[in-house]
Amino acid sequence: MPVIRVEMFKRTQEQKKNLAKELTEAFVRTCGGNKEAIKILITDVDKSNWASGGIITADKKD
Amino acid sequence: MPVIRVEMFKRTQEQKKNLAKELTEAFVRTCGGNKEAIKILITDVDKSNWASGGIITADKKD
Amino acid sequence: MPVIRVEMFKRTQEQKKNLAKELTEAFVRTCGGNKEAIKILITDVDKSNWASGGIITADKKD
Amino acid sequence: MPVIRVEMFKRTQEQKKNLAKELTEAFVRTCGGNKEAIKILITDVDKSNWASGGIITADKKD
Amino acid sequence: MPVIRVEMFKRTQEQKKNLAKELTEAFVRTCGGNKEAIKILITDVDKSNWASGGIITADKKD
Amino acid sequence: MPVIRVEMFKRTQEQKKNLAKELTEAFVRTCGGNKEAIKILITDVDKSNWASGGIITADKKD
Repeated sequence: MPVIRVEMFKRTQEQKKNLAKELTEAFVRTCGGNKEAIKILITDVDKSNWASGGIITADKKD
Repeated sequence: MPVIRVEMFKRTQEQKKNLAKELTEAFVRTCGGNKEAIKILITDVDKSNWASGGIITADKKD
Repeated sequence: MPVIRVEMFKRTQEQKKNLAKELTEAFVRTCGGNKEAIKILITDVDKSNWASGGIITADKKD
Repeated sequence: MPVIRVEMFKRTQEQKKNLAKELTEAFVRTCGGNKEAIKILITDVDKSNWASGGIITADKKD
Repeated sequence: MPVIRVEMFKRTQEQKKNLAKELTEAFVRTCGGNKEAIKILITDVDKSNWASGGIITADKKD
Repeated sequence: MPVIRVEMFKRTQEQKKNLAKELTEAFVRTCGGNKEAIKILITDVDKSNWASGGIITADKKD
């Protein structure tokens, strides 16, 4: 504990590495606890699998 | 808010498009709120990763 | 399968009842399959546990 | 997108407020994107509902 | 890793204790790995928040 | 109900088959209920998507 899950569109491995480091530090800074106990799980979401306002992101024109 | 997540066996992109549209409309119709605020995340589940009754679906004989 | 999860701010039981019915029908209409196999899990989210733009909803002034 | 979910033992509302702010900033710093689009969902986990090594945390003697 | 999450109707603490122990043992037996690394998160689901076949469980007559 | 989700590093299909069988049996043994109603969803997690202590597993040197 804690477990932090991030669902996001595909990022580079360098971005994921920095994200994991900074989310962990942010957690310890604000909530305390042992850094080693913080688990992070990233899920890469495809734009064909995410919708807002009823429209799949991959189908949006912008 | 809200976030609607759908875990299902692989569907076509046309089916996902219609699903996102209709789930969003169903939410607004029954619970109100702003259509734009409704987020949908679809997860494609492989039949080798889902089990019921202790048996992986991909191993079932029907 | 499928499993549909809805994370939303607290609604009435009447709204949940209608939501479950309409999400299920929307799924069958767009993706086919057996109505009985559709499972829905609703999670009531407290406004003190949801944030957007870095601000907890319960702390927003509107 | 993205959605960040944090499952943790109960914290104060002040800690949650700071956590939401800092996780959001950490995300923008490392992965870019629009701050407003970042959604955070916190789940308070009871020690009677979490186990490691096969033992429920509430039952651990330390 | 791994994280095992169980969503179920309310059980007694004694049942949860035994469940955590046996799920952990089942994982080690079949997939190997270090028992200490296995995390389990139980979510108590209310019958008013679960539906199958479009009907909330709390509303079913059986 | 219940739904058991397992997030783990990639295993063989034989291991998944045995895991699904044994988790299901462990649930029935400790919590009772109908074996057929137990659903299991396995998510294969890549070592580039999991971190502990702020470090992505794929980047760890051991």
